[in-house]
Amino acid sequence: MLYLIPTPLAPDAAASSVVPIIAELVKNTPYFFVEELRTARRFISSLKTGVVIDELVFWELNKDSDPQKVLKQIKFLKTNGHSAIVLSEAGCPGIADPGAVAVKFAHQVGLPVNALPGPNSMVLTLMGSGFNGQAFTFNGYLPVGNPGRVAKLKELEKELYRTNTTQLFMETPYRNMQLFESMMQALAPETLVCVGANLTAPDQILITKPVKEWKKDLPKLHKIPAIFAIGLFN
Amino acid sequence: MLYLIPTPLAPDAAASSVVPIIAELVKNTPYFFVEELRTARRFISSLKTGVVIDELVFWELNKDSDPQKVLKQIKFLKTNGHSAIVLSEAGCPGIADPGAVAVKFAHQVGLPVNALPGPNSMVLTLMGSGFNGQAFTFNGYLPVGNPGRVAKLKELEKELYRTNTTQLFMETPYRNMQLFESMMQALAPETLVCVGANLTAPDQILITKPVKEWKKDLPKLHKIPAIFAIGLFN
Repeated sequence: MLYLIPTPLAPDAAASSVVPIIAELVKNTPYFFVEELRTARRFISSLKTGVVIDELVFWELNKDSDPQKVLKQIKFLKTNGHSAIVLSEAGCPGIADPGAVAVKFAHQVGLPVNALPGPNSMVLTLMGSGFNGQAFTFNGYLPVGNPGRVAKLKELEKELYRTNTTQLFMETPYRNMQLFESMMQALAPETLVCVGANLTAPDQILITKPVKEWKKDLPKLHKIPAIFAIGLFN
Repeated sequence: MLYLIPTPLAPDAAASSVVPIIAELVKNTPYFFVEELRTARRFISSLKTGVVIDELVFWELNKDSDPQKVLKQIKFLKTNGHSAIVLSEAGCPGIADPGAVAVKFAHQVGLPVNALPGPNSMVLTLMGSGFNGQAFTFNGYLPVGNPGRVAKLKELEKELYRTNTTQLFMETPYRNMQLFESMMQALAPETLVCVGANLTAPDQILITKPVKEWKKDLPKLHKIPAIFAIGLFN
């Protein structure tokens, strides 16, 4: 079995992020695909399961991983009837995070896949937005810099008003303010923007208001993980 | 505060579905917006917090709710400094489920909103699919009946190959097989289909394979909650 296990988005957020069965799975699974070794060790040790971390096998799985090596590891699990856990640095493996390549090979060689519930910043933002949750698109990263970014934002806004499909997108945290300023420039004053930032942390932001209200008091998002959404109140 | 709390997708799945802080919140919050009274009572009692269910206040919130009544309830919470919890029948409030109307009013009157992590069948399917998780669209329900359904499926497939945006969609469970048969008819033999059905239950299906492989052995999905995705292995 290949278990896909979400990890907390914020420090000390285990109580709001980790379902009980995860400690049990970690206790009984010796192989781990991990995006980042240090974070993975810290997460496993935070579960206080009593496992000896130095006895576990860690395989790094990130954008630099050689797919052929991952395929060999998946085949090893399948052949020997072993299970492994996939951990990304924060949030859900495979969703705007590495992990999908291991899942692909698992399906191809017939190793069963199981995904566990947990924190996902897109879902938390969508739930908390009040926007249409019957139809939504996560657009990932928008073009960096203008005029590309403003043009893309205008395109998403047009699509929103045409189809009432909630549009979600993000940026690397240290460029959040540039993106937010482009949103203020590109979007109509009445367009509703939801910001989901530092989610599950005590100082999280999860607020929807029109562009013209955001403009009065820009949120401080520099280097803070954030998801942005535009949508309609139905 | 308006807390949006996901509920388990399958019976007896609390250990894989409910983060620990939820019991604490339920214990300390007397007001509940609920999609269905019976399921909400059962969920609350399953948490074994010791709260007396008959002392809680339940406000039904579903597609038949009068928005003006919901607005009054939200204003009551805001004015009196009270918190409430929103519970849908299964999964995340506000995502292909009622709840968004309460969230909308909360933002409008300035009642803070907090969304808790938990099971979401779209996210579980996307994680388990191996498809692109950097760009995806949840299309909700497709047109019922043909030629509309087949045409929409062909349109989604075209969009997938054009943009590598994973396309997710669903159907009411008793029409799953009609949808699945339309997929087998509309989609190219090599197109990859992921089925996420009965997720978090012991007999869940979470499998990706090409249409031509699914055709050899159609999954039994009649009346089983399911999410479908088409996507690419990158």
